[in-house]
This record gives sequence, structure tokens and C-alpha cells, in this order.
Amino acid sequence: MVDIRTRGVFATMRPELDRVEARLESAAQIDFPGVAELVLGLVQSGGKRLRPLILLLAGRPFDANVDTLVTAGAGVELLHTASLVHDDTVDRAALRRGRPTLNSVLPGGAVIMLGDFLFAQSAMLAAATDSPRVVRVFASTLADICDGQLREMFGGHRLDQTQREYEQRIYGKTASLFAGAAEMGSIIGSTTEADIAELRQYGADVGMAFQIVDDVLDLREGEQQLGKPAGHDLTQGTVTLPTIIYAAGLTTDSAAMARLRDVVNGDTVDQADVDRVVLEIRDSGALEAALDIANAFTNKAKFHAAQVVDAETFEMLAEVADLIVQRSA
Amino acid sequence: MVDIRTRGVFATMRPELDRVEARLESAAQIDFPGVAELVLGLVQSGGKRLRPLILLLAGRPFDANVDTLVTAGAGVELLHTASLVHDDTVDRAALRRGRPTLNSVLPGGAVIMLGDFLFAQSAMLAAATDSPRVVRVFASTLADICDGQLREMFGGHRLDQTQREYEQRIYGKTASLFAGAAEMGSIIGSTTEADIAELRQYGADVGMAFQIVDDVLDLREGEQQLGKPAGHDLTQGTVTLPTIIYAAGLTTDSAAMARLRDVVNGDTVDQADVDRVVLEIRDSGALEAALDIANAFTNKAKFHAAQVVDAETFEMLAEVADLIVQRSA
Repeated sequence: MVDIRTRGVFATMRPELDRVEARLESAAQIDFPGVAELVLGLVQSGGKRLRPLILLLAGRPFDANVDTLVTAGAGVELLHTASLVHDDTVDRAALRRGRPTLNSVLPGGAVIMLGDFLFAQSAMLAAATDSPRVVRVFASTLADICDGQLREMFGGHRLDQTQREYEQRIYGKTASLFAGAAEMGSIIGSTTEADIAELRQYGADVGMAFQIVDDVLDLREGEQQLGKPAGHDLTQGTVTLPTIIYAAGLTTDSAAMARLRDVVNGDTVDQADVDRVVLEIRDSGALEAALDIANAFTNKAKFHAAQVVDAETFEMLAEVADLIVQRSA
Repeated sequence: MVDIRTRGVFATMRPELDRVEARLESAAQIDFPGVAELVLGLVQSGGKRLRPLILLLAGRPFDANVDTLVTAGAGVELLHTASLVHDDTVDRAALRRGRPTLNSVLPGGAVIMLGDFLFAQSAMLAAATDSPRVVRVFASTLADICDGQLREMFGGHRLDQTQREYEQRIYGKTASLFAGAAEMGSIIGSTTEADIAELRQYGADVGMAFQIVDDVLDLREGEQQLGKPAGHDLTQGTVTLPTIIYAAGLTTDSAAMARLRDVVNGDTVDQADVDRVVLEIRDSGALEAALDIANAFTNKAKFHAAQVVDAETFEMLAEVADLIVQRSA
């Protein structure tokens, strides 16, 4: 299998992405033996760096200082890492991207503090851009992420939630950081307010697609593919778009609805019963319906990007958007 | 008993402190029924506001915009609140200032996220100062706090730690925020680097005294006084200055050392045995020795402040320093 990170937009942007990587590694240095390697391993295991990539691309068409873009890019990636650390603590997840989480090898208190340490490092990178506006976007993005996480925690288990409630929640949890990354890149590019608004919208739409695809994959793949068990969201009591669509097609008093309710409420402990509900959701066409919505978001994203960037940058932003939905192919 | 908050420096600075209070209350607004009152209650229960007070005083002699001081003051207080929330989660503390902690009334995951929400709000206040340098101090202070917490977690239980290791730890955990508050105030005052350095040192020294006194009180007071059980640090396995001084006076193979070791290692479960060790520490003169060190820090603090501020501001900074050690009287 070809590593996508050596091709296309990743190849073109490799020099800047490598600089982001170097900034990340130096920001993750921590003066505690044992912990240092865990934190570095965590930061280095971090996927495709889509958020810094979007930030770099959003600054590219304009008069942006590349060093500032790299600094801010490392900042958004560390903010993402910090929020994953706390999220895994909340979920008590044992695996992330197929690797053991900090949570599974350190006491809970240490993990909370390491998350805070990563927040501090990301805030230092945002501050190092010397742009009050970048810092404001950074801080309000963190607030949006918390809002999304709290919404998931307090309302994410409801089977009667609307698609709008779901979208508000994943906007905070996921899309806000993609939106913030694109906004920061264009702010560093010192472009017009109109350009900044379009690029922010590109980021937001791409982020929505990203989370919807993630939620579909959670119901579709096995442990190998996503690094966590299939139907993990469901057994955690988190109701995502495919499940909302599926539940909307059931009558309240049906046996299928009772089975679904039992899994979401945690009344089902047998994995075979969970698997049955996951299969019922898959067979209902709800995954395809959710992916259609994800596709609509990526199309909107491309439309916004097309308004403001040069042809070459547009191709790369479109490639990133396509990549996000292709994960589901 | 006269409420100290209606007298002296608190009376003089009341108008600015009230504005800090209003900023805090609006920053603590959160759109989740049930949680909203908990967060507001937490923010409102917050002690004497010493950190914002020091920030306000550090800006007072110079050409500081009062609104910016108020904003930054609310920011440091919320950063403090956020770090208490995570700290209580780590300690699984049930009481703080005599009130139930969030931790005792909400699931752990929600508390982590509420702490993050408060971090986000504090970062937004720092960003609202529009001063990249204030934001840098804010971010590096957060990093120092995490460093101190991690040091406590990974080394705070050692009975053979040096006074220097203890001081490094409490510098991060506590003094860094007092130092950062004084630094931010003087930065907002646009004064000289020399003035900023002296005021930062004032804050650092006052913060060291504050934590040493806290650690003495933990061994001296009952549940009524500090809002947590006496000897709480010890039973949590955290070795503080009085205990370090006490242990240094014991021979390794003494029965008293064995009793102390059992409490710190958690091998003693009987509260009567914990009480006995607490009494032995009290009787050894270690509390008085620790308070002498705290007093030396407040004297140093006053010396630094005296270099750079007007007489009236000096009186108030000295009053704050004295107040911190008077808690132990």
C-alpha cells in the first residue's frame, strides 16, 4: 500500500510539513524520565497532520511568513493532541491509532496533567506567532472544543437528537479546529476579511465531513482499521449521525429500537448483541446516507476555497477535502 | 471576625477588584443547565483574589490601562481556578474551601472538560489584552504550573528530597502564577525591563511564601480551617517542607521514621496513626522552621517591590505579603 503522505499535496508541502514536525518534537520535550518518551511517541504517532496542512495551505496564496505558519501549524496540531489526551481519559480508551493511550499506561492524574502540559505548549506556540488575532482564534477554538465535548457528554446519548444538534456538537468537537486552522493561516497571510471568512468556512466544512466519516467508520471497521473496536461510540453511549438516521426510521416500540436503546444505555453487555445492532445499522443504508451528507460538506468546502485562492492552492485544498471522504472508500 | 476583604488594600482596590469579579462571572457563563450554577458557584467561592490583586498593584505605579489590567486579572484568576479543578480531580478531593468540589458531584470526565473550559476562558481573557507579551507570560505560566504538578506527582512522595527540589516544585505549582500576575501587571504598565524583573520577583517570592504557609497549615489546622482534613498532603503521599525538615532530623532506622514512611507510602490506614505522625511533626519544631523560611521569602518580596514602586503602592504590596504569612498566626 502506497503511503499517501509521500504523494500529491503531502509531497508538495513536505518541506513546510517537515518544519512543523520539528517544531512539534521540540515542543513535546519534557523533563521527566519515562514520561518524555511517552509524550514524544504520542506526538510522533499523529496521523497525517491535516490541521497544520490546512493552515499552511490557507496562508499559501497570500503574503504569509512561512515560519509563522509553521509555528501556528505546530500549535493547532498540539492543541489537537492535548484534546485527544483528555478525550481518551474521559472515554477511558485503551487504544488510539492502534497504540496504547497514555491513559492505559499512566495513572489518570498524570494523564490530565500531561494533557494540560500539551495545552500549555500549544498556547506557547500560538503566542509565539506574536499575533493577538491568532491567539484569539486559538483560545476561542479551545472553548469551542470544550463546548462540543460537553455537549457530547450531556446530550450525546439521546436517540431522539436532531441532525442539527449532532452538527452543533461535532462542529465544536472537531470542525472548529479545522476552521480555526484555516482562519489562522489566512490571518497570518494578512489577506482580506472576505478571504478569511471563505477559508474559515472551507475549514469548518472539511471538519464536519471529517467527523461524519469518522463516525461512519466507527460503525463499519474492525479493530485493525481504526485502532479501536467497531461500534465503540455506540457502546460508549454516543449517538452519531448514522445512528440518528437509523433510529429515525424505526418505530418507538419496535424490537430493533429496544435493542438499540439497550446498547446505548449500556444495558447490553454481550458483544454479540452489540454486533447485531451494528449490523442492523449497516444494513439500513444509514451509513450511505451519512456519507452523502459528508460529501455535501466537502463540496461546500471546495466551493468556498474556490472563491479566494489560486488554482494550484485550490487543487491542494480540494485534494485534502477529497482525501477526507476517501477514507470511507 | 472582621472580613479582611473590606479593609486595607482590599478597600483601596475594591473598585478594580469588583470589575475583576464582574469579568470572572461573565467568563464563567456556560450554556449547560445544572453545570452553569456549579461553575458559577466555583468561580464565586474563590477566596481573596490575591493573584488579580497583585496584578492590579503591579500595574498601578505605571501607565497601565485599567481595563486591560482587569481583563488580565480575571484571566490569571480563572487560570488558577482551572488548575484547581484539575488538581482536585487528580487528588480526588471532595472538599475545597469547605465546599464540595465539582469532582464530588460530577463524573470525572465532565470535570476534566470543565477544567479545560475554564482554561479556554482564561486564555480568551489573556488574548483580549491584545498584548502578545502578556499572552506569552500566560502560556509559559501554564507550562510552569504543569511542570510543578508533574514534579509533585512523580517525586513529591520522596522523603529524601532536598529543600531545593521542594522549592522548584512549588515554584511551578504555585509561585509561577503569582510571578506571572506581577509580570503581566507591569508589562501592561509599559514600564522598564528592570521594573518588570523586580515585580516578577516580588510575585515569585510572595508565591513561595504562600505555598509554604499552605503546607504548614495543612499539618496544623483541622477540617474547619482549611476546608480539608489535617495532614491531607501526607496521606496523599505528598512530602512538603515541614515534613522534609522533620525527616532530616530523624535517623533512617528510627521508629518515628518508620511511622512517617508508612503514612507517606499509604501503608497506614488508621487515622489515629496518621494523627500521631502529624503531632510528631508539629512537636519537632519543623512547622516553625518552615514558617521562618516563608518569612524570609516575604522579606525578599518586599525588598524587590521597594526598588521600583511608589510609597503607597509599596505599602499595599507589603500588606499583601504580610497577609500571606499572617494566615499562619
